[in-house]
Amino acid sequence: MQQLSVRHLLGIKNLTENDIQLILGTAREFKDVINRPIKKVPSLRDITIANVFFENSTRTRLSFELAEKRLSADVVNFSASGSSVKKGETLLDTVNNILAMKVDMIVMRHSSPGAPHYLSDRINANVVNAGDGTHEHPTQALLDSFSIQDKLGEVAGKRVAIIGDILHSRVALSNIFCLQKQGAEVMVCGPTTLIPKHINELGVKVSHDVREALNWCDVANVLRIQLERQQIKYFPSLREYSLYYGITKKMLDELDRPIVLMHPGPINRGVELTSDAADSHHSIILDQVENGVAVRMAVLYLLAQM
Amino acid sequence: MQQLSVRHLLGIKNLTENDIQLILGTAREFKDVINRPIKKVPSLRDITIANVFFENSTRTRLSFELAEKRLSADVVNFSASGSSVKKGETLLDTVNNILAMKVDMIVMRHSSPGAPHYLSDRINANVVNAGDGTHEHPTQALLDSFSIQDKLGEVAGKRVAIIGDILHSRVALSNIFCLQKQGAEVMVCGPTTLIPKHINELGVKVSHDVREALNWCDVANVLRIQLERQQIKYFPSLREYSLYYGITKKMLDELDRPIVLMHPGPINRGVELTSDAADSHHSIILDQVENGVAVRMAVLYLLAQM
Amino acid sequence: MQQLSVRHLLGIKNLTENDIQLILGTAREFKDVINRPIKKVPSLRDITIANVFFENSTRTRLSFELAEKRLSADVVNFSASGSSVKKGETLLDTVNNILAMKVDMIVMRHSSPGAPHYLSDRINANVVNAGDGTHEHPTQALLDSFSIQDKLGEVAGKRVAIIGDILHSRVALSNIFCLQKQGAEVMVCGPTTLIPKHINELGVKVSHDVREALNWCDVANVLRIQLERQQIKYFPSLREYSLYYGITKKMLDELDRPIVLMHPGPINRGVELTSDAADSHHSIILDQVENGVAVRMAVLYLLAQM
Repeated sequence: MQQLSVRHLLGIKNLTENDIQLILGTAREFKDVINRPIKKVPSLRDITIANVFFENSTRTRLSFELAEKRLSADVVNFSASGSSVKKGETLLDTVNNILAMKVDMIVMRHSSPGAPHYLSDRINANVVNAGDGTHEHPTQALLDSFSIQDKLGEVAGKRVAIIGDILHSRVALSNIFCLQKQGAEVMVCGPTTLIPKHINELGVKVSHDVREALNWCDVANVLRIQLERQQIKYFPSLREYSLYYGITKKMLDELDRPIVLMHPGPINRGVELTSDAADSHHSIILDQVENGVAVRMAVLYLLAQM
Repeated sequence: MQQLSVRHLLGIKNLTENDIQLILGTAREFKDVINRPIKKVPSLRDITIANVFFENSTRTRLSFELAEKRLSADVVNFSASGSSVKKGETLLDTVNNILAMKVDMIVMRHSSPGAPHYLSDRINANVVNAGDGTHEHPTQALLDSFSIQDKLGEVAGKRVAIIGDILHSRVALSNIFCLQKQGAEVMVCGPTTLIPKHINELGVKVSHDVREALNWCDVANVLRIQLERQQIKYFPSLREYSLYYGITKKMLDELDRPIVLMHPGPINRGVELTSDAADSHHSIILDQVENGVAVRMAVLYLLAQM
Repeated sequence: MQQLSVRHLLGIKNLTENDIQLILGTAREFKDVINRPIKKVPSLRDITIANVFFENSTRTRLSFELAEKRLSADVVNFSASGSSVKKGETLLDTVNNILAMKVDMIVMRHSSPGAPHYLSDRINANVVNAGDGTHEHPTQALLDSFSIQDKLGEVAGKRVAIIGDILHSRVALSNIFCLQKQGAEVMVCGPTTLIPKHINELGVKVSHDVREALNWCDVANVLRIQLERQQIKYFPSLREYSLYYGITKKMLDELDRPIVLMHPGPINRGVELTSDAADSHHSIILDQVENGVAVRMAVLYLLAQM
């Protein structure tokens, strides 16, 4: 059986292209599973997984939890609120305590970039990064690539524009790595205040004109304006953002060729996307959510073999 | 096999009497199940149910969760606090995201009347209303009828007084519909400030005298004074309420004939009921709770066939 | 089969030495179970357990939840925040409601000393005290004894110093009872403001000098400075506490004979223990956490037979 080159899924940066293809191929099998009447397999029946979320999350936590349950793993959820973290315990002590209870795998979201990497060097369990600050969110990038593959046959050679708040997004960075490793071209597009200064060093095109981006790309991955992360000062107002960067169905319909519209959710309808764009035939936004469960099943399944 | 006339349980209003009898009859079988040493059946083994609670709840959420687990369903819990709802996502997007993860059924509590109805028109999954604002709470009404049937043999022909804060109660409206469809007579009783002005249009008697109500009825369903929903201004003080509408064991003992005392919980002891009344032989309050699990198993089981 | 002399685990005070040995012996078998590839047994497959936590907890709640799942029990979690407790319901009503849903066992944490004892007299289900205020925390004491037994062969005849905030600790009292019943000698050590005035009536030695305690004992069980429970006024500052009572690896290394270092967690590194002490070869802190799951499995298993 093929294996991953890593024991942890910390980010896309340290995956090989083989790793990515192995995950996407395995996810394809699990997508069949979750579309059968019996949506479960006994693969991880003897594995205990802790979802350790130091930051709130709905869809990601739920998606992991469903992936785990459909692999028949035992699942425990831990959230930072009301926990010993508030009593002054260190991150490493918290996780070591959980592991001492014979937990085999940690799925972790943390507000600090690098927190899962720090842990993975110090503990004896598989770590899956479910988002670390503005750094990486590898399973999101993998499900995005899976969704492109599903829709367009392959990722290689495709042009993907990532549009919106690149600066505060962990989705952007993971997607850039994931798409480039598979041979796609990437453009980032947004107001200057929301694009990191040295991002061109990553080999991506940069645009500040959303129409230019839409005309160029096969796939537009539109990011959320993360109201809760912004510093007011540097930011165009929501009204300005939506005026200059908001995407409408009309804009998509008028393009010369087909475009695939993606969004990692949750959508701010009327800000980065109008409702008619989000619900149009261009959109594969809900497919992304479905594919997320299959991709997470694949990641957990493959790491459990390591 | 008999089937419901509906795909969703949104309220009692749109159920037929056949639907009600089918649910109560099925619940009777499940009550046997949960009183066996082995309290589970494999009926919904391949079904995933999400409990989506936008309002806090203990007993209702726990009762549904136990009902689901005893039907062997896979269960995920989603609460609004700490969720993407706070990030500006619409209700429909939130639920569509959950469904895209291959969830088959949604049990939902929401503070807005009509929220589950709105959803049910737009999604492809069974919806169970676990309480929508001050509108309906259909499983509570069904378990109340089940409990009356259990105690008195049948609901038809019985006189039921609903006593207390009718205005802010979703339990009252669902009970009125449910009891009338089965041929019971209904009276509502409370201070004028807590009774909706046009309620007599629903064909119920209205009384402002609790002794009159108790003398009239076979069953007194006493509602909670919902401290957290009241506007102070219109409300008799708790002391006044308890003085004029509080029910004591002595009041029940002195009636000419047997009376059945019900309460949907949680009880404010010393306000709407004294402790000796709540704990008297008249009371079937804890039976209601037990029956709630059986009734919810029946609802979920029957909807899963649709 | 041997049985416990009690139907509830309320505290160590009312256990016999036989009870303690039966629990520790059974825990030894379960420790083997959770160290096998298949960490589960079907023992409590037909039992429903509710974890009812009126006070926040991470490790204890998680440890109980894992113990329950590895016994194949059905588990529901109830936390006071967002519950009917906030709506004015009494403790007994809350628990009776949960039990009416056919729950067989209650694991309960409450801020009021005696709350589980109060309940156990009034309900028909097994109650496990998971910590009641500053009173008892019996499963912690049992896992501490199990860990001493594991490390040193037996508890009888050993000298155990409990060091730190004895006054606000439920761990201290349960440990004193548990160790004495097994024939160990106990010393408590800490600043006068953190030691209850009449504790010598329990037959323990008292010291205010941490070096004296370390020189005397075979096992040092170092308690957490519970920042959140302290009244500033009576308390030495953290800096003072750490200066006079903080334990370093050097202090442990320089003792004449081996010492075992324990801590119930969560650790305040740099306050009651330096990091090098906590992570030293003297420490069995993470073993305690592992043993906690086995001990809780034993308690639940044995109570389910009663």
